[in-house]
Amino acid sequence: MEPSPELYRMILRLRAIREYKPEPVEEPDLLAVLEAGRWTGTSKNRQDWSVVVIRDPSQRDLVAACGDFTDPIRRAPVALVLVQESQHYEFDVGRVAQNMMLAASALGIASCPITLHRSEEARQVLGVPAGKKTRYAIALGYPADHAGPARRGGRKPVTSFVHQERYQR
Amino acid sequence: MEPSPELYRMILRLRAIREYKPEPVEEPDLLAVLEAGRWTGTSKNRQDWSVVVIRDPSQRDLVAACGDFTDPIRRAPVALVLVQESQHYEFDVGRVAQNMMLAASALGIASCPITLHRSEEARQVLGVPAGKKTRYAIALGYPADHAGPARRGGRKPVTSFVHQERYQR
Repeated sequence: MEPSPELYRMILRLRAIREYKPEPVEEPDLLAVLEAGRWTGTSKNRQDWSVVVIRDPSQRDLVAACGDFTDPIRRAPVALVLVQESQHYEFDVGRVAQNMMLAASALGIASCPITLHRSEEARQVLGVPAGKKTRYAIALGYPADHAGPARRGGRKPVTSFVHQERYQR
Repeated sequence: MEPSPELYRMILRLRAIREYKPEPVEEPDLLAVLEAGRWTGTSKNRQDWSVVVIRDPSQRDLVAACGDFTDPIRRAPVALVLVQESQHYEFDVGRVAQNMMLAASALGIASCPITLHRSEEARQVLGVPAGKKTRYAIALGYPADHAGPARRGGRKPVTSFVHQERYQR
């Protein structure tokens, strides 16, 4: 566990990218992203999630219709829908998403997290059994030449993000 | 967005570490970890979380008593309790946790995610207002010389983690 300022900077720089090249994500790259998901830690090693990989444009359209700001899923060559296999531990789904997006970034692949607000519809589109949740997805693709991070509003100041010993506000 | 095989390997290698050196985490290192949290993406840039930094051992004991497998919080020199400021978006809390643990790793700091099963008790211990959630924490410290990843049961095979186009099982 040697310190690496460069790796630290890359982690800090991850931003959602919403414009992609039309080329498909190469299979070894995609597998490497999924492998980073598979090895993400989970509470008690439950691994209570799986991923639906969607390349087919009409299937991506159907999934995109299940949320309100889902255009990156239509534009990207591939979308990963995260399946939360039980009702608990959405926390772990967030962990696996962040790990896959960072791994993608390390491979030169842009990503954008997507909320499927009508997740029950998404569940049905994907043939996922009742009781499992499909609220989150990730659009993946090589970044378009003109792609930059979306407009973003900066971040809260440290003083409102960090509390010492007890919460004060 | 240049590919970095080194970053990819570090992401894949991240494991929870539960044994730490007794020294405190140096202030610049701790701030860098928190900065990685602060810059983590959130749904609509809501940034709907904050962090309580706990160094005081008796306060760490009180928090540790709010979960069932919390010894790393007692042993580590510092614990971060993640505050989910609204009832929604536990997904984003998972993202910020993963980002901070990876950033810590890039700085040579070991971490372990912790579930506070009795999160309402933790909320009261920390003086967090009702309606906010404090279910997750991270223990942080420089790894003990003998520290290795905890026993772990490997991972599901790719075939049960990945589905193509639709969910099948």
